[in-house]
Amino acid sequence: MLLPLLFTISLLFSSSAHASVLDFCVADPSLPNGPAGYPCKNPAKVTVDDFVYHALGIPGNTSNFIKAAFTPAFAPQFPGVNGLGISIGRFDIAVDGVLPLHTHPGASEILFVVEGTICAGFISSSANTVYFKTLYKGDAMVFPQGLLHFLFNSGQTLATAIASFTSPNPGAQVMDFALFANNLPSAIVEKTTFLDDAEVKKLKAVFGGTG
Amino acid sequence: MLLPLLFTISLLFSSSAHASVLDFCVADPSLPNGPAGYPCKNPAKVTVDDFVYHALGIPGNTSNFIKAAFTPAFAPQFPGVNGLGISIGRFDIAVDGVLPLHTHPGASEILFVVEGTICAGFISSSANTVYFKTLYKGDAMVFPQGLLHFLFNSGQTLATAIASFTSPNPGAQVMDFALFANNLPSAIVEKTTFLDDAEVKKLKAVFGGTG
Amino acid sequence: MLLPLLFTISLLFSSSAHASVLDFCVADPSLPNGPAGYPCKNPAKVTVDDFVYHALGIPGNTSNFIKAAFTPAFAPQFPGVNGLGISIGRFDIAVDGVLPLHTHPGASEILFVVEGTICAGFISSSANTVYFKTLYKGDAMVFPQGLLHFLFNSGQTLATAIASFTSPNPGAQVMDFALFANNLPSAIVEKTTFLDDAEVKKLKAVFGGTG
Amino acid sequence: MLLPLLFTISLLFSSSAHASVLDFCVADPSLPNGPAGYPCKNPAKVTVDDFVYHALGIPGNTSNFIKAAFTPAFAPQFPGVNGLGISIGRFDIAVDGVLPLHTHPGASEILFVVEGTICAGFISSSANTVYFKTLYKGDAMVFPQGLLHFLFNSGQTLATAIASFTSPNPGAQVMDFALFANNLPSAIVEKTTFLDDAEVKKLKAVFGGTG
Amino acid sequence: MLLPLLFTISLLFSSSAHASVLDFCVADPSLPNGPAGYPCKNPAKVTVDDFVYHALGIPGNTSNFIKAAFTPAFAPQFPGVNGLGISIGRFDIAVDGVLPLHTHPGASEILFVVEGTICAGFISSSANTVYFKTLYKGDAMVFPQGLLHFLFNSGQTLATAIASFTSPNPGAQVMDFALFANNLPSAIVEKTTFLDDAEVKKLKAVFGGTG
Amino acid sequence: MLLPLLFTISLLFSSSAHASVLDFCVADPSLPNGPAGYPCKNPAKVTVDDFVYHALGIPGNTSNFIKAAFTPAFAPQFPGVNGLGISIGRFDIAVDGVLPLHTHPGASEILFVVEGTICAGFISSSANTVYFKTLYKGDAMVFPQGLLHFLFNSGQTLATAIASFTSPNPGAQVMDFALFANNLPSAIVEKTTFLDDAEVKKLKAVFGGTG
Repeated sequence: MLLPLLFTISLLFSSSAHASVLDFCVADPSLPNGPAGYPCKNPAKVTVDDFVYHALGIPGNTSNFIKAAFTPAFAPQFPGVNGLGISIGRFDIAVDGVLPLHTHPGASEILFVVEGTICAGFISSSANTVYFKTLYKGDAMVFPQGLLHFLFNSGQTLATAIASFTSPNPGAQVMDFALFANNLPSAIVEKTTFLDDAEVKKLKAVFGGTG
Repeated sequence: MLLPLLFTISLLFSSSAHASVLDFCVADPSLPNGPAGYPCKNPAKVTVDDFVYHALGIPGNTSNFIKAAFTPAFAPQFPGVNGLGISIGRFDIAVDGVLPLHTHPGASEILFVVEGTICAGFISSSANTVYFKTLYKGDAMVFPQGLLHFLFNSGQTLATAIASFTSPNPGAQVMDFALFANNLPSAIVEKTTFLDDAEVKKLKAVFGGTG
Repeated sequence: MLLPLLFTISLLFSSSAHASVLDFCVADPSLPNGPAGYPCKNPAKVTVDDFVYHALGIPGNTSNFIKAAFTPAFAPQFPGVNGLGISIGRFDIAVDGVLPLHTHPGASEILFVVEGTICAGFISSSANTVYFKTLYKGDAMVFPQGLLHFLFNSGQTLATAIASFTSPNPGAQVMDFALFANNLPSAIVEKTTFLDDAEVKKLKAVFGGTG
Repeated sequence: MLLPLLFTISLLFSSSAHASVLDFCVADPSLPNGPAGYPCKNPAKVTVDDFVYHALGIPGNTSNFIKAAFTPAFAPQFPGVNGLGISIGRFDIAVDGVLPLHTHPGASEILFVVEGTICAGFISSSANTVYFKTLYKGDAMVFPQGLLHFLFNSGQTLATAIASFTSPNPGAQVMDFALFANNLPSAIVEKTTFLDDAEVKKLKAVFGGTG
Repeated sequence: MLLPLLFTISLLFSSSAHASVLDFCVADPSLPNGPAGYPCKNPAKVTVDDFVYHALGIPGNTSNFIKAAFTPAFAPQFPGVNGLGISIGRFDIAVDGVLPLHTHPGASEILFVVEGTICAGFISSSANTVYFKTLYKGDAMVFPQGLLHFLFNSGQTLATAIASFTSPNPGAQVMDFALFANNLPSAIVEKTTFLDDAEVKKLKAVFGGTG
Repeated sequence: MLLPLLFTISLLFSSSAHASVLDFCVADPSLPNGPAGYPCKNPAKVTVDDFVYHALGIPGNTSNFIKAAFTPAFAPQFPGVNGLGISIGRFDIAVDGVLPLHTHPGASEILFVVEGTICAGFISSSANTVYFKTLYKGDAMVFPQGLLHFLFNSGQTLATAIASFTSPNPGAQVMDFALFANNLPSAIVEKTTFLDDAEVKKLKAVFGGTG
């Protein structure tokens, strides 16, 4: 009696290789990317560890210039999120630390404060309105897609937060790095930002840019 | 006079290999899947038979435990639907037959009754409201995406129905198979469903599960 | 013991008015449409009849010029499909009847033959390739989005088919009606189609156009 | 010199009322829902508090049948997420507590463990494969859209977790509530689940169902 | 001090190979297409020339039957648009020239008149309403997705226009080519269009069709 | 004979009010916006002028601080694009004029140079790579969604360009306006950008900011 039943099951599911397209598409980074993400790993080789990520439990190293660190769990690190339109990451921000102004070109973000006190804000494109607030342990704030936003530690202790994104690979465009950490000629930076030459030269030195 | 015209045509169409991306993307299941479906078969090798499926004319085998069968025409069986966001299938439900409670994780469904009488229903997640009705030949019912629904033959003759889905590969998660047709330990099934141990053990035996 | 449980349930579900956004959005045609469909009917007033449609069991009237009829179950007729990206309809095609060349501007379609014999085809935009086939009872054919396609009865008996669409309101642009059933001046029809004046005038008379 | 500049700005931004469509669409729950979410609150009345949510800092009440609670920050509670395709919530699970098997019909989820030890798992629809793992503080797990999944406290202390969803209003369909907390007749439950009558009657009593 | 900073940067960006998925996905036409477009060119090999297209500055050859030409800048010609949901093209229409009735099966279009005078129009599917207007230098007109539309030079000088599309590869289905430039049997053309045999035969000869 | 035919037509089209959902959704800005755009104007009141926009033929006023102007044809100005995922605009850039660094939070853009010489570039988020090029009359360049980009006149004559966007209302976030044209406290600007106080104060004065 079981065989005919399983025959029915197999029809309901077609083959696992096919149906897996629907359930999930674990990234196979050995294949070329596409506009919708990575091709899918062979479902027969998928394990629970493709859907679990451990490194967010490890504090990031904040011994750096911005006294802050971001640990991503994006599709490249966390292959199970490929194709699912979501990812996550961890912020550690030391006292006086800051996540400089940045955008996520293709993702909205929700920040959740796990420990400490963070001043967070974003700026609308419609009227340059600034929306910022001091967030305490347990507070959440949403940053709409593509808008400039910032975080800094406004307390006396290390701050830790979890961020969720509406993309498996949201990336981040940090304004200072975009302006000062590459070979964009200083004359162009100045012409397109109205910053003065000394400021641009100084910050290119700080962020490792040339030109 | 024709050549310059055809020259214009070729510009309007760019090459068929490229423009075919737009018209259709017949599945090439020999290549790895992606989040948006299968890569496209070489358009030069596409024929009308990629867009036509015959097996839905053949009654499914209902000599099984549930006295019902589902014959899918999903992307793996019907490559022309790949990338088009639609597929179809056939239900045959013998007298006393049933399609047990199941969901389509990523698709809404419309059922159309070709022959016989079917009692069909779904349950909302918002308030556990049950929406069910006896359907007769020619009736249609829609099951919103991801919600538990069921079908059973409530008449005295074989029932046949056609189902359409908003995905080329909707799959199906049948509650009994999810709970009782795998190696999920009985203790976990019991803890997460409040079913008692005897019931779980009995149904694992019926559905071929272990643990 | 039950109250705290239900308290948990209500948290899991937030209110039915809100969660209904997710489960379904039954059309309220008394409110203005939006780009994504009709606003949602108050969930408290939704019944199973919003999700069930009976008229597809009634043969359409083929006593007309094309000896064919289409009975739609789109959002305006079948409010439960609003927002779900799917709809359905019924074709009746008498002997010698035809569904003239037409497109669905925003939907792909799967045709399923319930009774009779239908010759169906579509034309690619990439290379003007024609894909057509005689379909018998139980056959299915997919027409990719936006492409010109046609159906005609190629048998000796009435043909009936069910069509599913990837839109709750796919509409249809019938070439003859677009050219000859309105006030588009004959001179423009002729200039943009290369049809001759007599033909255009004749068909405008047939299809009720002017100019 | 400023006026002509601001004139340019106003062109670049068109009016804030319009551009706000793009930046964000804070929910106005006083207006009827639509398939894409709530209509937008007047941008002139939007404040930073529409984008910040405090209640996730408050432990949920776990003195209930499942010894667990879920606190949602969905569009109804957190209007700033409306239209942005993301939301968040908090789980509190006491020792021996459980979030019974459930699905989110239209959302994928990432769980992040803030405190304690949680056993979490989901079941694929393609082959009924179970993917489950014990998660510790700092671990994250992704549950693909629409699949049955569960959580239970597998440690000796209260567990707290944050969940992110790919919808501003994901809802949840809990299997036990869908089967046993409504008026779905026991005979239908039994026919579509193969559970025996005594079990169904017992659980309907527990979960407040009738029929 | 720079090293820890760059360490932070690399975390913020994950690897360029991965994050590039988000920024852009330049087409690699040497790989098989997928439903969402071409796989991505290796980001390390992407240059500014992938994002720039020069040929739209060159007038198309209007010495042809329709006295008009279209120069596409679609993904095959302009690989930087792959995956971005947009493309562009140039129309040159000589005096008395015409772009015959056509649709873009999967794209809406905005036309911008650079030089000359163009009569442009489209036909709705909902009521066969014709929307047409004479456009002068600097005018723009939008053609909604999938609807039949036309352009012809209604002035005394060459007309040039730029068209933008909501697809990286919109293609075009020209009614005359679909009907008369292939091997669709004349009998089927006549049956499905109500055109008479002489007209169909004449236009098949003009457009290079057979059958 | 015509009546039954028109009866068939009306079935094929259902009513124009309904089918208009599919063909187009002309903005009715008198109603509240939604996440997918404006509600639809009553189709009976739609005219060809809703689909045509004239103001792009008029040079913008470049007598301002940036010696440049942008004239938008977005949904608020050009209601026919509502819901269609596309819009257009015109740039005029005088000699020495510049469009400062900015992003479109939810849109990709294609720029087409109508007259003059423009240096245009964008910066990737993945590796801060700068892609910039001098564009001449007839050249096109694509800027992927959400990335910082700039334009300036690099020639000796007025430059004019047309930009197309993948949103009916893309807006623009100009870095200088976001930083210096609002009340974001200077101390926060400095902390999150590493600009020095004198520079921030100077530019707030230029751009009309406070704090």
